[in-house]
Amino acid sequence: MRLSTYFLPVLKETPNEAQIVSHRLMLRAGMIRQSSAGIYSWLPLGLRVLRKIEGIVREEQDRAGAQELLMPTIQSAELWQESGRYDAYGPEMLRIRDRHDREMLYGPTNEEQITEIFRGLARSYRDVPKILYHIQWKFRDEIRPRFGVMRGREFLMKDSYSFDTTADGARRAYYKMFVAYLRTFARLGLKAIPMRADTGPIGGDLSHEFIILAETGESQVFCHKSFLEKDPLALGLDYAADLKPVFDDWTHDYAATEEMHDAAKAAALGDDLVTARGIEVGHIFYFGTKYSKPMGATVAGPDGQPVTLEMGSYGIGVSRLVGAIIEACHDDNGIVWPESVAPFKVGLVNLKSGDAETDGMCEKLYAELTAAGVEVLYDDRDERAGSKFATMDLLGLPYQLVVGPKGLKDGVVEIKARAGGDRETLSPEAAIARLTA
Amino acid sequence: MRLSTYFLPVLKETPNEAQIVSHRLMLRAGMIRQSSAGIYSWLPLGLRVLRKIEGIVREEQDRAGAQELLMPTIQSAELWQESGRYDAYGPEMLRIRDRHDREMLYGPTNEEQITEIFRGLARSYRDVPKILYHIQWKFRDEIRPRFGVMRGREFLMKDSYSFDTTADGARRAYYKMFVAYLRTFARLGLKAIPMRADTGPIGGDLSHEFIILAETGESQVFCHKSFLEKDPLALGLDYAADLKPVFDDWTHDYAATEEMHDAAKAAALGDDLVTARGIEVGHIFYFGTKYSKPMGATVAGPDGQPVTLEMGSYGIGVSRLVGAIIEACHDDNGIVWPESVAPFKVGLVNLKSGDAETDGMCEKLYAELTAAGVEVLYDDRDERAGSKFATMDLLGLPYQLVVGPKGLKDGVVEIKARAGGDRETLSPEAAIARLTA
Repeated sequence: MRLSTYFLPVLKETPNEAQIVSHRLMLRAGMIRQSSAGIYSWLPLGLRVLRKIEGIVREEQDRAGAQELLMPTIQSAELWQESGRYDAYGPEMLRIRDRHDREMLYGPTNEEQITEIFRGLARSYRDVPKILYHIQWKFRDEIRPRFGVMRGREFLMKDSYSFDTTADGARRAYYKMFVAYLRTFARLGLKAIPMRADTGPIGGDLSHEFIILAETGESQVFCHKSFLEKDPLALGLDYAADLKPVFDDWTHDYAATEEMHDAAKAAALGDDLVTARGIEVGHIFYFGTKYSKPMGATVAGPDGQPVTLEMGSYGIGVSRLVGAIIEACHDDNGIVWPESVAPFKVGLVNLKSGDAETDGMCEKLYAELTAAGVEVLYDDRDERAGSKFATMDLLGLPYQLVVGPKGLKDGVVEIKARAGGDRETLSPEAAIARLTA
Repeated sequence: MRLSTYFLPVLKETPNEAQIVSHRLMLRAGMIRQSSAGIYSWLPLGLRVLRKIEGIVREEQDRAGAQELLMPTIQSAELWQESGRYDAYGPEMLRIRDRHDREMLYGPTNEEQITEIFRGLARSYRDVPKILYHIQWKFRDEIRPRFGVMRGREFLMKDSYSFDTTADGARRAYYKMFVAYLRTFARLGLKAIPMRADTGPIGGDLSHEFIILAETGESQVFCHKSFLEKDPLALGLDYAADLKPVFDDWTHDYAATEEMHDAAKAAALGDDLVTARGIEVGHIFYFGTKYSKPMGATVAGPDGQPVTLEMGSYGIGVSRLVGAIIEACHDDNGIVWPESVAPFKVGLVNLKSGDAETDGMCEKLYAELTAAGVEVLYDDRDERAGSKFATMDLLGLPYQLVVGPKGLKDGVVEIKARAGGDRETLSPEAAIARLTA
């Protein structure tokens, strides 16, 4: 993509409505624009990141055997009356009346709707186990939306729902999603720690939040320092195997949010206790028959008798993650994207637009890298070098490939790694080899 | 994907709420489930088709130089008051009050919102030309939603918006989208005919509808028979070139919907006149300053003076297309998907589940085809052959690969092409070669 034609409105000034760093950087980097309070448009650069996160979330759901469907945003109130949550949910639910004065709502979550679907279409114990998920926009009418996409009103969530006929089966689903979440956050470049959690309005008796550590996190968290060393991607992965040992390994050390904090247990850790700020990026629940029972969601068991379905639900805040990743990955100059979610891998900086040799080399590098499948943002504008460097640092692409007349005289270009700032001077051919490796 | 574990609830009976063939077939094939009137959940099989269509639409937009962003579903009423459409739009607009009693709405289209974005972020004539698009759920509160996804209330639309400083520039954008639409529909396996159209509530003075012909179409259309022979994919494509000759070539012969029909012109065609039923799948508009003027969307011209932006908008009904393609592509036994949008390319039919040799060959074919990137739906269930064939015909995958003990004794399997029904008996190796070619 050429910056001269890309719709990437970088802001020079820091917008003063933004209270936290991710919100400021997303506005400055031209990733989002506020539409109304807590509701954002995703500009091209921001949408690229959102889609990359969504893609990784999807891959790990599919790998765990979950199947994707898509439920609509607008639901009938009747469903929520069946479960008893319609009155309980409160003013965060955006309630709507359609032209026939029917009560509708913009879904804040989908337990009722998926239960209705499964109730209507599954017949027998042979139709389970199943984990179904969708990635869809939700709405929660926060009283004071703030922190940009971290706490917006309209937000993108991946929510999965598991169906089983036994509690054991439901726990197996829970372990699968637990492991899938560990893998997902690790692939996003985050260190996420599962913490025993309150079940809140979703209900149930087993629940974990996945918390990433960031200095700017929204709440205080406590954990054993062992979590900082663990790497979920190092696990040999077999979703057909018993995953309880993995679950046990990731839950036996102390880890808790403020609400669930046990000061005595924490104190017992001594020097092994880590106290930090955290951001919630995922939440999983096993709630048994909380929805299936009032809604009459059963399948025929092997003996022909109806069995009430055991269910769980599993959420990841996809749009929230864009902000959360920035909170965890930035410096004074801007964003420092993990490579897996960076909007482009390489920022190609032309130090002298208009100079025939520099332009020619940039075009050649742009064409060859693009042909090799590397995503390149080419700053081909007629701007000062300092301004171009500042923009590239702000945007946070993993690599800057810098091309100028002085280097070209010696037959070299420069690669700068955004994280750490290491610079390397090398031939254009070697640069291509490095960036396509 | 193995049918034994796939969430694919095929219905044996024809649902009697469905009045048209695509709606019936989508329900029977387990593609969708009604959530409430005119609002559907997309089950896994249906979602696969929706995503493939979306992918082709996106590729052709990108190829034409349009840039993707994503606007939210919920908009502020203020925007629509600025343009004057808030009161004009009528009861099809889903109007909402949030918890602070602010007037909001579920976007039925996005002219106002994109104009606000561009007004806020573009500064100078150097920021144009631009074509921006998004693929997002819309809501139109139809008084009598019907025909399944063909006329739903919540629907997925791709809408693009062009910004230029001159009418000539705006026309160039219009021609680009015109050509992109011809290509898009052709790649979807459809013959779409551009017809001069009324501009309706969007406004403007130049507009074309893209109509596909289907016996079950919603309205009468008339065109020169020359359109039936034209192939947009045969065009040498260069979006940098002047596309007016292409536009002229595709618009000089008579083609009109009922509303724009000119009986005298049609009669003059004599035997060259085709009268048929049509389905609208796309609609493009050039409306100049209709929104930019009341909303004050200007950029600085080369002389520093503000220039009011010239705009157009360009819509494709992505979810509607799923139904429209089925209306155009089905027979008495079910759907006949064009290969480009088929949910899977191959349906692998195991004629004797439980037979070691048959199971073994099916597993081998499934593994090898999948490894080669071919999407296979493997019917591994313990069902009668007749039932499996009927299901595969209903689902409409382009190829059925049939494996049974009798054929295996002779070292052969069978490939049936769903369109046309041609059958071929060949070795498993030859079958793999054919299906991966």
